[in-house]
Amino acid sequence: MTVSLFDSKLFAELFSDSEMAALFSDEAAIAAMLKVEVALAKAQARCGVISQGACRQIAEGLADFAPDPAGLAKDTAAFGVPVPALLKAARVAIGKEGRHFLHWGATSQDIVDTALVLRLREAVGLLEERIGKLLDFMASLASAHAATLMVARSRWQQALPTTLGCKINLWAEPMRRHLVRLTQIKPRLLVVSLGGAVGTLAAMGDKGPEVARQLAAELDLELPTTSWHTQRDGVTELAGWLSMLTGSLGKIGQDLLLMSQSEVAEVRFSSGGGSSTMPQKSNPIGAEVLVTLSRMNAGLVGIIHQSQIQEHERGGSGWMLEWATLPQMVMAAAGAMKHAELLFSYMEVNVQQMRANLDQSNGLVLAEAAVSALAAHMPKPDAQELVKRACLESRRTRAHVIDILSQTVDYSIDWQRLKDCGRYTGIAARQGNYDAEASAES
Amino acid sequence: MTVSLFDSKLFAELFSDSEMAALFSDEAAIAAMLKVEVALAKAQARCGVISQGACRQIAEGLADFAPDPAGLAKDTAAFGVPVPALLKAARVAIGKEGRHFLHWGATSQDIVDTALVLRLREAVGLLEERIGKLLDFMASLASAHAATLMVARSRWQQALPTTLGCKINLWAEPMRRHLVRLTQIKPRLLVVSLGGAVGTLAAMGDKGPEVARQLAAELDLELPTTSWHTQRDGVTELAGWLSMLTGSLGKIGQDLLLMSQSEVAEVRFSSGGGSSTMPQKSNPIGAEVLVTLSRMNAGLVGIIHQSQIQEHERGGSGWMLEWATLPQMVMAAAGAMKHAELLFSYMEVNVQQMRANLDQSNGLVLAEAAVSALAAHMPKPDAQELVKRACLESRRTRAHVIDILSQTVDYSIDWQRLKDCGRYTGIAARQGNYDAEASAES
Amino acid sequence: MTVSLFDSKLFAELFSDSEMAALFSDEAAIAAMLKVEVALAKAQARCGVISQGACRQIAEGLADFAPDPAGLAKDTAAFGVPVPALLKAARVAIGKEGRHFLHWGATSQDIVDTALVLRLREAVGLLEERIGKLLDFMASLASAHAATLMVARSRWQQALPTTLGCKINLWAEPMRRHLVRLTQIKPRLLVVSLGGAVGTLAAMGDKGPEVARQLAAELDLELPTTSWHTQRDGVTELAGWLSMLTGSLGKIGQDLLLMSQSEVAEVRFSSGGGSSTMPQKSNPIGAEVLVTLSRMNAGLVGIIHQSQIQEHERGGSGWMLEWATLPQMVMAAAGAMKHAELLFSYMEVNVQQMRANLDQSNGLVLAEAAVSALAAHMPKPDAQELVKRACLESRRTRAHVIDILSQTVDYSIDWQRLKDCGRYTGIAARQGNYDAEASAES
Amino acid sequence: MTVSLFDSKLFAELFSDSEMAALFSDEAAIAAMLKVEVALAKAQARCGVISQGACRQIAEGLADFAPDPAGLAKDTAAFGVPVPALLKAARVAIGKEGRHFLHWGATSQDIVDTALVLRLREAVGLLEERIGKLLDFMASLASAHAATLMVARSRWQQALPTTLGCKINLWAEPMRRHLVRLTQIKPRLLVVSLGGAVGTLAAMGDKGPEVARQLAAELDLELPTTSWHTQRDGVTELAGWLSMLTGSLGKIGQDLLLMSQSEVAEVRFSSGGGSSTMPQKSNPIGAEVLVTLSRMNAGLVGIIHQSQIQEHERGGSGWMLEWATLPQMVMAAAGAMKHAELLFSYMEVNVQQMRANLDQSNGLVLAEAAVSALAAHMPKPDAQELVKRACLESRRTRAHVIDILSQTVDYSIDWQRLKDCGRYTGIAARQGNYDAEASAES
Repeated sequence: MTVSLFDSKLFAELFSDSEMAALFSDEAAIAAMLKVEVALAKAQARCGVISQGACRQIAEGLADFAPDPAGLAKDTAAFGVPVPALLKAARVAIGKEGRHFLHWGATSQDIVDTALVLRLREAVGLLEERIGKLLDFMASLASAHAATLMVARSRWQQALPTTLGCKINLWAEPMRRHLVRLTQIKPRLLVVSLGGAVGTLAAMGDKGPEVARQLAAELDLELPTTSWHTQRDGVTELAGWLSMLTGSLGKIGQDLLLMSQSEVAEVRFSSGGGSSTMPQKSNPIGAEVLVTLSRMNAGLVGIIHQSQIQEHERGGSGWMLEWATLPQMVMAAAGAMKHAELLFSYMEVNVQQMRANLDQSNGLVLAEAAVSALAAHMPKPDAQELVKRACLESRRTRAHVIDILSQTVDYSIDWQRLKDCGRYTGIAARQGNYDAEASAES
Repeated sequence: MTVSLFDSKLFAELFSDSEMAALFSDEAAIAAMLKVEVALAKAQARCGVISQGACRQIAEGLADFAPDPAGLAKDTAAFGVPVPALLKAARVAIGKEGRHFLHWGATSQDIVDTALVLRLREAVGLLEERIGKLLDFMASLASAHAATLMVARSRWQQALPTTLGCKINLWAEPMRRHLVRLTQIKPRLLVVSLGGAVGTLAAMGDKGPEVARQLAAELDLELPTTSWHTQRDGVTELAGWLSMLTGSLGKIGQDLLLMSQSEVAEVRFSSGGGSSTMPQKSNPIGAEVLVTLSRMNAGLVGIIHQSQIQEHERGGSGWMLEWATLPQMVMAAAGAMKHAELLFSYMEVNVQQMRANLDQSNGLVLAEAAVSALAAHMPKPDAQELVKRACLESRRTRAHVIDILSQTVDYSIDWQRLKDCGRYTGIAARQGNYDAEASAES
Repeated sequence: MTVSLFDSKLFAELFSDSEMAALFSDEAAIAAMLKVEVALAKAQARCGVISQGACRQIAEGLADFAPDPAGLAKDTAAFGVPVPALLKAARVAIGKEGRHFLHWGATSQDIVDTALVLRLREAVGLLEERIGKLLDFMASLASAHAATLMVARSRWQQALPTTLGCKINLWAEPMRRHLVRLTQIKPRLLVVSLGGAVGTLAAMGDKGPEVARQLAAELDLELPTTSWHTQRDGVTELAGWLSMLTGSLGKIGQDLLLMSQSEVAEVRFSSGGGSSTMPQKSNPIGAEVLVTLSRMNAGLVGIIHQSQIQEHERGGSGWMLEWATLPQMVMAAAGAMKHAELLFSYMEVNVQQMRANLDQSNGLVLAEAAVSALAAHMPKPDAQELVKRACLESRRTRAHVIDILSQTVDYSIDWQRLKDCGRYTGIAARQGNYDAEASAES
Repeated sequence: MTVSLFDSKLFAELFSDSEMAALFSDEAAIAAMLKVEVALAKAQARCGVISQGACRQIAEGLADFAPDPAGLAKDTAAFGVPVPALLKAARVAIGKEGRHFLHWGATSQDIVDTALVLRLREAVGLLEERIGKLLDFMASLASAHAATLMVARSRWQQALPTTLGCKINLWAEPMRRHLVRLTQIKPRLLVVSLGGAVGTLAAMGDKGPEVARQLAAELDLELPTTSWHTQRDGVTELAGWLSMLTGSLGKIGQDLLLMSQSEVAEVRFSSGGGSSTMPQKSNPIGAEVLVTLSRMNAGLVGIIHQSQIQEHERGGSGWMLEWATLPQMVMAAAGAMKHAELLFSYMEVNVQQMRANLDQSNGLVLAEAAVSALAAHMPKPDAQELVKRACLESRRTRAHVIDILSQTVDYSIDWQRLKDCGRYTGIAARQGNYDAEASAES
């Protein structure tokens, strides 16, 4: 156990995701900050704030500049941000004119925040792509199991029949909404930060807004309306999205854990973990990790919300609180996506056991259907009472509820049809979609 | 101190908001659930699931039906939801045919969730309207103070000049984004819940989807794609929005508290609280409440995110966790909006003190400006070094930094102009807007 | 759904606890504050700070004084604390001399905090008593089921045999520790608050410390070392204890939910909730509420920890954050204790089903035992491999693992004895206690 | 910005603490697990569960065994815990007999948890030692400033005089309580974990309890009453303690930030951070970090409380949630302790400015004193009214409140004495201690 599981070599494959982790290394952070400094120089040269020569020297000097992070640690601690240390080291690599105009009129936070946004753009792009793939996989799995009967459960009890296809589609639906949300969030998140010391861009004279516009264009980011140094709703909104994503995956994980229990045995994970002492066990590790990461993000999202309350034009405590939290949330989302993909790929569905669990209830799961059928002949409360008694008898005698009822009352009811769980799945047959078209498509 | 400050009579005016509180009373909860039951009957009558007569009896019977909440408590505890108790009481008020078809094919959660959505619609409508009004007020205040010079602060230190108009506009900007967010959230939040026992609507035969559509129409809500019984991203998203709103208000509160300090004295709240022992004090109560409510919501939002992980087709623990949390978040948002309105209405701005605080620095806040001016004549690091020394001297001698510099170097610099804080406010003059048009408008 | 479930009449019996709720009413808050004011007068009279006559008038005037909370709401909002409003109303009820010396030299926070401590003393006393009773009940239940065999589960899978008595004792153990913790916490929590305006007791001249000592004696509270106006570790520690208590109960709830599943059926709650639509269901409502309340407190405890960061000698935001959170945590603990008592009292244990679940594994739960037995004859990894293969075969053929093994190898092993689950329960036979004495006692 | 600031090379000196970080490396985790395995072998040899020869081979084989963490990552992911991978690698290093008996009868969680406890013992020892040192330093600082007058503040306003010595002692007081708490927590935290697969120690036959006792002795840990695999109150209690510690430090940080504001200027941090753009600034970085780390821990503590709800005899999700959270909390505590030490060591106290801030109020801070003095001659409410008016006049005219009063009324009051702030500090003169002895000592 290291400080963060995501940085641990030992736990790298259990929790982390190498593709995403690459975005949150010291080296990636430094590279992104340097990229912003170069883009700023270009934007300023374009606006005549600095000379083309200075810009060229900056761009050339920083092209291959990649300082050792440890070498910057001391000054980073002294200044409370890595930028001054980085600039000091960078200036050595830059020609005299450029050196002079590096970081002209910007503040450290402009650089750190814009560099963060650049990495977040890659991060959400990665997640977006993976969600798309997972949804495709889930859609085909749902189709394949459109007719796979299983029991639906309500408050820990078997309730009614449904289909595995419906269950999978209901898992997928929020993730479809997450993609829509992401499209709406992006224009607010993927914005440049350039405010200078206090959000007024005073050091750039009257060129400030144009430099900001050019910087945004150079980095292919949006220009916000005003500086967001201490207005962190964009970051907070992303944190919420990340935790909604892991929450949806955590719900899947929770369901899979319940389905994987020895007594339920509806799914099994062939590559799940074994035990150091019990050779018979195949632990549903990946599903457990989904729950872990979702509860982790559900806790971390509150920290980000706390960090919204920042002081005046620039505050340190809340900003550093973001640093301490947001990358973990992104990693948790990436790790959860990885595990979700893996789980669906090696999940063994036990269709026979699903059917057996449904049948095991001896018709208890058809109680509502029975009430409906009987209610055509008597008041509903009476029907409910009748069925309730049949259920109790069934529990005692293990006889089928429908058989008990058919012997109790004498109405014209097609008992055999009523006994068929497959006929009482409602819109589960169309994967739970209200819209028949949607079901046809998915 | 009662269990919840929002329910306390003693603290009603300090934390709560009567208009919003009315939506979250037992009575309002019951009325909304009954409204859903009536709408369901109408939708089902329209689809031929129940008879017109039954529907009429239900509508008539429930028109004036308002049971005593305490009378439903025992059964609510027994069933874990208030609906069965409510139905039992309601049936007595309904004619025989209707009684039979009340709540036909629905599950308790359908009723509770749809009734919640109805109240949330009013709640977000109320907040939306108030945010609009607050933004109008803030915009006019920002205009009035477009030229009010004050010091901008970075990491607890005086940094550069800005204007109060800019500061206010930067406070307002995230709330403009919150309105956009709300528009995007609504179609996902304001949806009907109708899934029956397990989301399949099996009890309504093949009429389920059409009943759902009619119910949505009847209540003027959206129809979701599938049942959301255990997919709570809509509620979670709202919780995030509420906490982003209170977060933005909490940031304003924090700034006002800092500005109201005896040593800063830039604002004063005439109606703020006095002290039981110190007659000289005028406590900035409202601003403190803003911080309290924002930190409260920042904590509660994490609970809602935890509640996403619900079991199978219907889970109780996570759902009840929402009940325990969401209404408080709505109330905190309403209370914070109330206080924000009040604060801005009775805030006394001390323009002279703002100016005095700016001048008190003896030009330290112009250090960056001085560096810029000097950097036209020497390398920037040298200029920084020079200014740094002048700052230290100024701290010691209380002489003005610009005066010290003008006596130190011999460049052609308009020192008098440089000394004018009002000339170093950058885009603060346009309230911090990058876009000149926006500033003209706001 | 009201703002707080604990204040709702509709949900009163589902979540709240009437005995505890009585401590957190507006009326109880007011009564406790008045009690502190009277005690302060007595302490001051004893030290000669105020006259005996003034003291008598205060005590007599407030003896039956119980103002309407709503009448104090306006001033409470104006001052940000209820004390000034309360004093104003109280003075009318007090003779002239006493009126003059009411609240002498104290600050509002002294009164509010000491009054809170008085109520918390009753609250933790109530919890302590109930935990004791619950532990007694659990101990006798554990004894009664000392030999009730059931399957122990690890990471959602059947693992090894255990006994229900052991399981119950392991649930109880942390609660025994909570009682020890409470004993240690009390001297830090049950302390008087008296610091005057800023913790220096300046208004009482050199009598301050003696008044504080007398006040503590009068109220039978401890005297802290210094004022704790903005040092809230006592309250924070209590919050942690409350959430540890609900956490331990939530774990029990979680286990009971898992055991109550239709497919597991080891416990059943006769008074659990029914369904509005499914007559066969008996929902384990109480167990779900345990999980809800534990997750609620786990969220709220973080808010209390945030509230530790208070400003200077007296801060409002953090203090009010406590008001908004702590009473809910106490109520959640009381509600959880109530449900735990109820659950254990009406829990039906299905001993046959426990046995059946154990047997259903066909010896998979004896895999570790088999490895141990075989390891006496071969290297452990080989034994593990052998058993693993037998487990796979058992899964396929449904034959008993021990039978398969006995037919595979030819060692001198007492296979029949090995097949007996009851012989492989280790210290479960002594309820999991390492110490044989402890087991004998419990 | 890496995933965790504590693992970052770039931010190592800003947030992390190298001494503590060494305990939470992959290598330290592995070493601690191996230490437990060796101790287990010794304990078992002593009890005759394994042979002395096997024990010797295990001890010798593992003495210098230090596998590459990355090499264990794949199997760690497959098993969900690092132990099986570690055992597999370790067996190669151990002689045949020992190899056979390595990890005999233990489960992975026994090893991971006991290894964690070993490291936590060092961690809390480190913190304990540092708290002691910090308290010593604070006590001498408080003594040195026993007579340094400054203004005490209530709800963001100047309130009354106090001394810096009193302020420092009030900061220190909760940390003294934290040391007491730690003493009480240790026996519950520093316990061995040994339960075997499900807490019954079945695999060790009747030797289980004795092996557990010997293991505890070998590692100098306590033996708990029962297995704590899924009873995590010990870990939760530690998390609460860590967050109370950082909370107390965060409160100090918050106060220092307020005192360091340009307009207040009572303290200054010579080694604080500069700005990349503003040469005049000296940012109070360390104090900001204290607030960051306390708010971080206040968020993380809630995650640990959530992790209490674990399933049956062994659960994965909650356990892994601890892994993801607890080390960060320890590191935050260590980082905060480091910064607190640094802050106090390079804090420059501006005694003159403290005095000036006190005087700046023109006697407003003596309002309560004036009320007390006047109340000897008139009813207290009248005195309050009189003083309130004098305060308002003072605000307007900048005349001293006491001077205004002396010209308003004609009582025999020693106005000059009343005007002396140093005479109205109450028990601040004894650093806020109620007990005169304690003040003499500290």
